[in-house]
Amino acid sequence: MASSVTNYPLPMLIIFSLFHYLIFSSLCSSISASDSKSDRPITIDSLRASLEEQEDFIVFSLIERARYLSNYPAYDSSYLGLKNCSFVESFVRETEATQAKFGRYQNPEELPFFPALQSFQSSVSPLFNFSQILYFPASRVNVSRTIWDMYFNFLLPLITRDGDDGNYQQSAASDLICLQALSKRIHYGRFVAEVKFRDAPSDYISAIHAQDSETLTKLVTSKTVEETVIERVKKKAKLFGQKVTVEKNVGNETNYKVDPAVVSDLYAEWVIPLTKQVEVNYLLRRLY
Amino acid sequence: MASSVTNYPLPMLIIFSLFHYLIFSSLCSSISASDSKSDRPITIDSLRASLEEQEDFIVFSLIERARYLSNYPAYDSSYLGLKNCSFVESFVRETEATQAKFGRYQNPEELPFFPALQSFQSSVSPLFNFSQILYFPASRVNVSRTIWDMYFNFLLPLITRDGDDGNYQQSAASDLICLQALSKRIHYGRFVAEVKFRDAPSDYISAIHAQDSETLTKLVTSKTVEETVIERVKKKAKLFGQKVTVEKNVGNETNYKVDPAVVSDLYAEWVIPLTKQVEVNYLLRRLY
Repeated sequence: MASSVTNYPLPMLIIFSLFHYLIFSSLCSSISASDSKSDRPITIDSLRASLEEQEDFIVFSLIERARYLSNYPAYDSSYLGLKNCSFVESFVRETEATQAKFGRYQNPEELPFFPALQSFQSSVSPLFNFSQILYFPASRVNVSRTIWDMYFNFLLPLITRDGDDGNYQQSAASDLICLQALSKRIHYGRFVAEVKFRDAPSDYISAIHAQDSETLTKLVTSKTVEETVIERVKKKAKLFGQKVTVEKNVGNETNYKVDPAVVSDLYAEWVIPLTKQVEVNYLLRRLY
Repeated sequence: MASSVTNYPLPMLIIFSLFHYLIFSSLCSSISASDSKSDRPITIDSLRASLEEQEDFIVFSLIERARYLSNYPAYDSSYLGLKNCSFVESFVRETEATQAKFGRYQNPEELPFFPALQSFQSSVSPLFNFSQILYFPASRVNVSRTIWDMYFNFLLPLITRDGDDGNYQQSAASDLICLQALSKRIHYGRFVAEVKFRDAPSDYISAIHAQDSETLTKLVTSKTVEETVIERVKKKAKLFGQKVTVEKNVGNETNYKVDPAVVSDLYAEWVIPLTKQVEVNYLLRRLY
């Protein structure tokens, strides 16, 4: 059975070459437009639109992880004899190294959980002109460790059923996708803070000079927006986590793949507070 | 800024150890039940339930890939100077090697696109007692190459907008998730065929002896089931791909993240026919 996808016969190679040529020639005109992405203004509205899209993906990712059992051996560093490193941590480290090599962390929206210096090198992907709007070194604000602990200690036990189905790699890969989605969302606080600061620097400057976290927290808080987000993610967990059939009308479900209350709690207790913590920590460093 | 998540302070280590102990001791009683998963009967109903769940994940994955632009440089083997291997192929090869090392392909439901022999070794994960219900060598039936070509030539241009946003690694990672979800779904045809054969061997034996693909295709075809699946995935693409707001009722959307007609066409023209091809090819080898 031919299972390799590399040794194409000649006619297929010709079709492929033609396909590549067509794709490539039709798209060449858009290269300059795409390359100038960094010129597009980033506004609070464009950031909020991205955060809304990211919500969908966070809910999808949690539902996907919930398909597997808890698979506890993957989380116990003594169980697999890996010397102080659980299966999942070992998998995340190796996967992040590969992703770094392929350029993931060129995009300033992405932060690794294990930023070993050597893995930052993007040896395969060419440099891309990503927007660099963040202020350095405030851009280094990082709550990865808190996200990691929250995910494994709080969230994972609430979305998985106890047991061992042997799919350790699949569970770990799903964990990493959830972790990355949460990390990207929470660290978006840096971009939100930068744009808020640029829009009205005078609102923040005195609190920054006074290193007044409490005032800054008040300034970046909008209770109405927060309540809307929490309600919306609950609705998304219901919509995306129901069993869909052709006959049934939507919205009658009670048995969701991930408990919608867990998703709204995740946002209320972790995602929103951590995003604000990132915003405030970013602002505290914004003038220094 | 502390960004590494490995060097935990002592109190946190104690909390973690306690957490692991609690998790582990509470779950030990379920080990035997989980280990005996292979004893649970696999029925056509349990397979259909899994295929339904897999549909959700396929739709989620396509929506996720659609968040990025087409990112054509990642698909052109000449563009990045990788010597006859595109960025995406190179990424898939390396990622599959890591996933193999962590035991992904121990589970007979998973098939790699690049099954280099050395990457089958699972050096990190211990052996798990997965159900081995497939008949060898029929189990080696494989349409990975067709899925690969279909995905890049047919599907990807229909779900992405033209352009280059520089997120090559993220696009390639999303591609791999889509490819793996489609491959798992389509190669489930092997399990479906095995269970259908076991349920009523006499229905198939003469056609198998005659190597009569046409009769076998008729035997594994249920137009009603197929039509339901196609209608259901379209409904899922609408539900999961709509813009959800707190105020708006669901179902009023017309601007979906992935065109629902593309998803139903994907199933009608590729997923269902390829699954049946896998079923028939499996049955043709079922007695030899």
